[in-house]
Amino acid sequence: MKNLTLRDIASALNISVTTVSKALKNYPDVSVKTKERVKAYAEKVNFTPNSFAAYLRTHESKTVGIVIPRLNHFFFSSILRGIITEAEKHEYMTFILCSDESYELEKTQIQRLLNKNVDGIFLSIADKTHDLTHIQNIMDKDTNLVIFDKYSKLTPCSSVVIDDRKAAYTAVEHLIKKGKKRIAHFRGPLLPQNSIDRFLGYRQALEENGIEYDKDLVFICDEINDSEGYDHMQQILDQKMDVDAIFAVADLPAVGAIKCLIENKVQIPEEIAVMGFSNWLISSLITPSLSTIDQPGELMGRKAFQVFLDERDTKKRNEPVVFQKYEIETTLIERKST
Amino acid sequence: MKNLTLRDIASALNISVTTVSKALKNYPDVSVKTKERVKAYAEKVNFTPNSFAAYLRTHESKTVGIVIPRLNHFFFSSILRGIITEAEKHEYMTFILCSDESYELEKTQIQRLLNKNVDGIFLSIADKTHDLTHIQNIMDKDTNLVIFDKYSKLTPCSSVVIDDRKAAYTAVEHLIKKGKKRIAHFRGPLLPQNSIDRFLGYRQALEENGIEYDKDLVFICDEINDSEGYDHMQQILDQKMDVDAIFAVADLPAVGAIKCLIENKVQIPEEIAVMGFSNWLISSLITPSLSTIDQPGELMGRKAFQVFLDERDTKKRNEPVVFQKYEIETTLIERKST
Repeated sequence: MKNLTLRDIASALNISVTTVSKALKNYPDVSVKTKERVKAYAEKVNFTPNSFAAYLRTHESKTVGIVIPRLNHFFFSSILRGIITEAEKHEYMTFILCSDESYELEKTQIQRLLNKNVDGIFLSIADKTHDLTHIQNIMDKDTNLVIFDKYSKLTPCSSVVIDDRKAAYTAVEHLIKKGKKRIAHFRGPLLPQNSIDRFLGYRQALEENGIEYDKDLVFICDEINDSEGYDHMQQILDQKMDVDAIFAVADLPAVGAIKCLIENKVQIPEEIAVMGFSNWLISSLITPSLSTIDQPGELMGRKAFQVFLDERDTKKRNEPVVFQKYEIETTLIERKST
Repeated sequence: MKNLTLRDIASALNISVTTVSKALKNYPDVSVKTKERVKAYAEKVNFTPNSFAAYLRTHESKTVGIVIPRLNHFFFSSILRGIITEAEKHEYMTFILCSDESYELEKTQIQRLLNKNVDGIFLSIADKTHDLTHIQNIMDKDTNLVIFDKYSKLTPCSSVVIDDRKAAYTAVEHLIKKGKKRIAHFRGPLLPQNSIDRFLGYRQALEENGIEYDKDLVFICDEINDSEGYDHMQQILDQKMDVDAIFAVADLPAVGAIKCLIENKVQIPEEIAVMGFSNWLISSLITPSLSTIDQPGELMGRKAFQVFLDERDTKKRNEPVVFQKYEIETTLIERKST
């Protein structure tokens, strides 16, 4: 059966669509008799007012949108799960769009969400985004914006992040405590803030522990995947570089490094220890299991949704929203690879 | 700046909302002069007609919804990616909802999507779903339904699936060709069709190759996770069962089995070979790498969206839709574990 509309009811009762709409919303300028007639009929035909009607009434669409740089990514899946779980609890529906790490696509996706009148947008900024005007534009609208994970210091909104620098510091300090002194860093691309912060934490941990920073021990992983980790590791072995540990910007390059070390029969962690970042499912499943930093994605997602709700309520009370940076705690997970 | 509405334009020009709406839609019963006035003003204030207006015009919301049993699941993430990529190409937005393998939640989620007037629903049926009325109800609406992966033979709609039985047959035959004769099966739960079909393929491969089926070699993985695989493997070793290969319903239990075998210093594949199913990212990253069946999730997602578009076009032409079961090809991936 086709969904009934206000128009169908109006035509069945031979009154105007406006009257039907007003009757259902209990407007005072419709007679009690007409209201009763409309409501009885609506009940009889099992009419559910659709979401558009609700939107017209409340100016809330009860929808939110998430723009993430990658689908098929364990950490982002965890965040999605956190946001969606919390959204469902509050009867919001969630659009998911992917920017594919592209600046142009990120702009388009945000515009599409604004066209859909979403009440909130959750964004993790694409690696290629070099200009933030499209993000600042959101703030001019009725839509609330919360940024998670990959943020920028220049966006005027709240963000839910981890302290990447501190977490990286903890990871490298752990390697130093294990007696490692020649620690290579497989870092992420140059632009994203979290990649910069993890690098800074690495460098700070070395320097504060009296180990000289050596730029030749830093390798860039543009895609942050396992084969980059494998290749950098192979290069270190081929060139017989003096390295006794690896700190990788994420788990996948670390897993690639472990694969390479096993194939080259290098003892882990005795000869070379390996430390990841993020605590993907895979890090506990490989042999030797991978030491890493737990980055609680689901918790970040839940927090991001709560921040959205709070700011929305604040706005409804016509109070000014104070933007904050919420830092979620990370934990060092020690496993066999260190 | 607040989003401008038709009402704002109407009040600025001192005409009715209906006239503004009709003018923007180029209705013949509005004078050319009024149309020009409205359009000029709309352009001046940078008014973008919102999606609700578009919906009222076309009766298409240009949105679709996906209901999957689990987020945080590599295979479903791949399917999501396929559907979302294709949807974006055709300017559809995608809602994602999760049934958490629960029948009740699946019913709720479908109702919520119907309330949002989505044009299409993509569903993978929850393991706990025992009654299909809520799914059959979708077919009574204007919304098109396409089922993927976990389907039921009883739903009157098209589906995009793999031939689980044939794929499982291929996997087990591969083990037999490697000289294995005592092949245990770590199967999925009893209800879902794909779990049943993989079991039937396993059994058929044994029987057609002259190996007697032994029910004691079949172990159930209710959650289809790694620790179930680990525990079943440990039980086989503890009880010194005569087993020379494992065929697991999915990669995670297979990875758990490999972890257990490594810890017990059992040679893979010489003493016990291990075969997974799905080709998750992890299967190529562990050592030894896992032989498996490639189940192309992204391709399935793309196909599901194309089926939706085709059926929608057919309906628009007022032609009858013929439901089909589309089977996507799977491939045997041979790696070190066999």
